[in-house]
Amino acid sequence: MRIDIITVLPEMVEPSLNCSILKRAQNKGLAQLVVHDLRDYTLDKHRRVDDYPFGGEAGMVMQIEPVDRCISELKSQRNYDDVIFMTPDGEQFTQKMANKMSMSENLIILCGHYKGIDYRIREHLITKEITIGDYVLTGGELPAVIVTDAIVRLIPGAIGDEQSALSDSFQDNLLAPPIYTRPAEYKSWRVPDILLSGHEAKIDEWRYNMSLERTRQLRPDLLDE
Amino acid sequence: MRIDIITVLPEMVEPSLNCSILKRAQNKGLAQLVVHDLRDYTLDKHRRVDDYPFGGEAGMVMQIEPVDRCISELKSQRNYDDVIFMTPDGEQFTQKMANKMSMSENLIILCGHYKGIDYRIREHLITKEITIGDYVLTGGELPAVIVTDAIVRLIPGAIGDEQSALSDSFQDNLLAPPIYTRPAEYKSWRVPDILLSGHEAKIDEWRYNMSLERTRQLRPDLLDE
Repeated sequence: MRIDIITVLPEMVEPSLNCSILKRAQNKGLAQLVVHDLRDYTLDKHRRVDDYPFGGEAGMVMQIEPVDRCISELKSQRNYDDVIFMTPDGEQFTQKMANKMSMSENLIILCGHYKGIDYRIREHLITKEITIGDYVLTGGELPAVIVTDAIVRLIPGAIGDEQSALSDSFQDNLLAPPIYTRPAEYKSWRVPDILLSGHEAKIDEWRYNMSLERTRQLRPDLLDE
Repeated sequence: MRIDIITVLPEMVEPSLNCSILKRAQNKGLAQLVVHDLRDYTLDKHRRVDDYPFGGEAGMVMQIEPVDRCISELKSQRNYDDVIFMTPDGEQFTQKMANKMSMSENLIILCGHYKGIDYRIREHLITKEITIGDYVLTGGELPAVIVTDAIVRLIPGAIGDEQSALSDSFQDNLLAPPIYTRPAEYKSWRVPDILLSGHEAKIDEWRYNMSLERTRQLRPDLLDE
């Protein structure tokens, strides 16, 4: 899988792509993550990619020209499953969406910055708008990395132990059960006896019941799906 | 405001804190963002902070001891409004929560990693569990930066033009209206005439109507709040 991320702040994207699972997935050849500095695609001599909004308003707007130039160049090189724009009013990103997107071959993710992007980009160049949640951020850079992380870790081989991803929260519409590690007692706080019993079947049953109980209590909506 | 972020991957957190608005807010003295490497708080000679889960299961678990030692040291130095743990089964982070949290004085954010953290940390040391959305990520590092970004940009003075934050999506339960910048025509795609009219009152009316229409179409739930 290849993901091209277009941004005015490559320094906010690149370091996170070179850590942990994302780094390992790239080293293993499972994912190719390419960051493009939007300023490399402007013809403006001062490398500006934003301008004042029409109609007067606070904030600056990302221009269509450099974005179109960058996306067009990428699309001339390969086919893309989607050209994604990260925006608070996009479709809510979920684990289901991550599962589906992890099967993509090539994706472009455009990070908005400043007040927003020229709306014509969204109308004519973008095929999918995604939000990671109902809150406003400085730009689309962190959300783009979030989406990349959620997708890439699902590629078989990306995380060491595939079983680990399957038992994550949401994969079966249940929250994960409590987990514990040594020491068995810390400041009088003890690990539940059952986990020290060695009785595998009972431990599995306990875990399932705890998952169900936690889901009922915290996220009953997941059980209705 | 001060935010202490505890993580096993400082290199995944620090670069993002030193970009854009977060960098500016720190330079202006509006926010103090401190990253703590959890490994500095373990007594293990190999600097390990994780161990196998009790009861057998795939994945590693973050131990309570180093986390307790780090949080205790911080709490001995100042009072904290909350000790936050980023987790997919926490309370959903929203703009309202960001607004409220932006009034905090001191916050600790603990990033989980590996399969998860010893549940006793959550029961005894954490005061608030937050998720940024229903999807699973490699760790809590990116979510911690997301929450930090959403909060810090709300501190008066953090973003250049305060008006810009007030007209963001969600602040008034309406999605933002379309925005445009030069050129007025690009590849036959034209900016709406009204925005070029110079008629301020009509432009305001158009923007309000577009906000309302977009919200009705994409996020009718926001209008019921």
